[in-house]
Amino acid sequence: MSEWSAPNPRFRERLLSNVAAPGFTSWAGTTVERLDPGIAHLSVRFRDDLAQHHGYFHGGVIGALGDNACGIAAGTLVDGDRYPITAEYTINIVRPANGDRLVARASVVKPGARLTTCAAEVSCCADGNETLVAVMLSTHAIVPG
Amino acid sequence: MSEWSAPNPRFRERLLSNVAAPGFTSWAGTTVERLDPGIAHLSVRFRDDLAQHHGYFHGGVIGALGDNACGIAAGTLVDGDRYPITAEYTINIVRPANGDRLVARASVVKPGARLTTCAAEVSCCADGNETLVAVMLSTHAIVPG
Amino acid sequence: MSEWSAPNPRFRERLLSNVAAPGFTSWAGTTVERLDPGIAHLSVRFRDDLAQHHGYFHGGVIGALGDNACGIAAGTLVDGDRYPITAEYTINIVRPANGDRLVARASVVKPGARLTTCAAEVSCCADGNETLVAVMLSTHAIVPG
Amino acid sequence: MSEWSAPNPRFRERLLSNVAAPGFTSWAGTTVERLDPGIAHLSVRFRDDLAQHHGYFHGGVIGALGDNACGIAAGTLVDGDRYPITAEYTINIVRPANGDRLVARASVVKPGARLTTCAAEVSCCADGNETLVAVMLSTHAIVPG
Repeated sequence: MSEWSAPNPRFRERLLSNVAAPGFTSWAGTTVERLDPGIAHLSVRFRDDLAQHHGYFHGGVIGALGDNACGIAAGTLVDGDRYPITAEYTINIVRPANGDRLVARASVVKPGARLTTCAAEVSCCADGNETLVAVMLSTHAIVPG
Repeated sequence: MSEWSAPNPRFRERLLSNVAAPGFTSWAGTTVERLDPGIAHLSVRFRDDLAQHHGYFHGGVIGALGDNACGIAAGTLVDGDRYPITAEYTINIVRPANGDRLVARASVVKPGARLTTCAAEVSCCADGNETLVAVMLSTHAIVPG
Repeated sequence: MSEWSAPNPRFRERLLSNVAAPGFTSWAGTTVERLDPGIAHLSVRFRDDLAQHHGYFHGGVIGALGDNACGIAAGTLVDGDRYPITAEYTINIVRPANGDRLVARASVVKPGARLTTCAAEVSCCADGNETLVAVMLSTHAIVPG
Repeated sequence: MSEWSAPNPRFRERLLSNVAAPGFTSWAGTTVERLDPGIAHLSVRFRDDLAQHHGYFHGGVIGALGDNACGIAAGTLVDGDRYPITAEYTINIVRPANGDRLVARASVVKPGARLTTCAAEVSCCADGNETLVAVMLSTHAIVPG
């Protein structure tokens, strides 16, 4: 259960088609794990081309997955002719992302007609254990289109 | 000319080999445009798999390029047996990154034995014109290794 | 209950004396509401000299209270001859802080020998109702002293 | 000279009256050093009630002065019936602010009808020497009122 309700009853179709559209997100193998009003969980599996030079998930990939999850969480709460664009995000990386799967869980902190603020936690899974690797905050402008 | 001097005379070789190592950075086609003490400029060319669903450079790719540039700028000022890891970064995206090339120019704000702070500007080039698309600040822990 | 344990059994005395020391924190009337390993809750009462020009709590005061709470939360997990200094913080202000009392609740996300990451929520109370006004993330360097 | 022009010819009167209005900003003794389209420089003199417990300027005071400078810089570029409110700011503190005067120099990175992004540097003066103590980025929503 989430505390919000979605103004667009077809928000899932719209957002899933964005994730599946050709581009970085689908190239990275992004999977939508959960999509509810105000909530989006995304994951990617480890691949060599998502790593930095020590073989962990690259910090930019962690940020990208978290930014995607935040933007999609924000997108669940806009009506059909508007969409969120990322104005800024902050990511604090607290541990190396050493594992086989990365999961970003984003939720809306405060939706708005002009601005939506989100938060996310990114965890890394190795041998069935999940460890928190990063926390994020983000701001999204809600624009026509 | 930069205001800093590099404690490791072979910093270029070390950092260029990191950029060229297999992983996300080399997959994205990252080119080192400039590497001086306290300064790193990196660029990537537009490709469909670096885009978001409107065909602009993906926000996560902008963040990753800027994070890389900041980390490499920090890396120019450490000695040979230490290296920087990203503790956090903030990115403010001010315009859509609509163009054929993305350039991140990072410089060290304050180097330290434990922490180094960097700043970066990311610009996008289209038809020979360059436009600022994002500004960043970052903190890197300097660790043995 | 918190998930951490404090290496310094006298952490409360040490941190409470910092809050009470002459300076901005005691001038603002800061009250420690809760202090446990990894957790610090602080509050201030509304005064005209803590307001911005619309009569709400000033954004800088919100940031200062949150930064204080984060630094004190970090301070609960260091041993007796070290202390945290703020390397950076990010604050997202989601609503005007219109009320008679401001409460910042900070917790440690990840403690470390060199760096500690914290998160905080800041709420404002008016007529007995509490509303979230800001979320924060912070990084603290742990230094000798 | 700044690169922007101000839509409201009376922007100085309006913003100076905000700084002088009763509240935290005037309590702290904030002086406007420079006010031009897209640019605001503010300063405060050291006082014991602006300090943390080591006798340096408090991190929250540094953030508050920078946030004020950014908000005022943003305010120079809005027309007469709109004003900026801070949506978020990030501050990286790079040195202790040990001195007798703190100066924040903010400039607009990108003005907008809905959002304005600013950057600031905060320096501390001691014995006639000025040292950079913090860098900031901020986002301001432009709202009617």
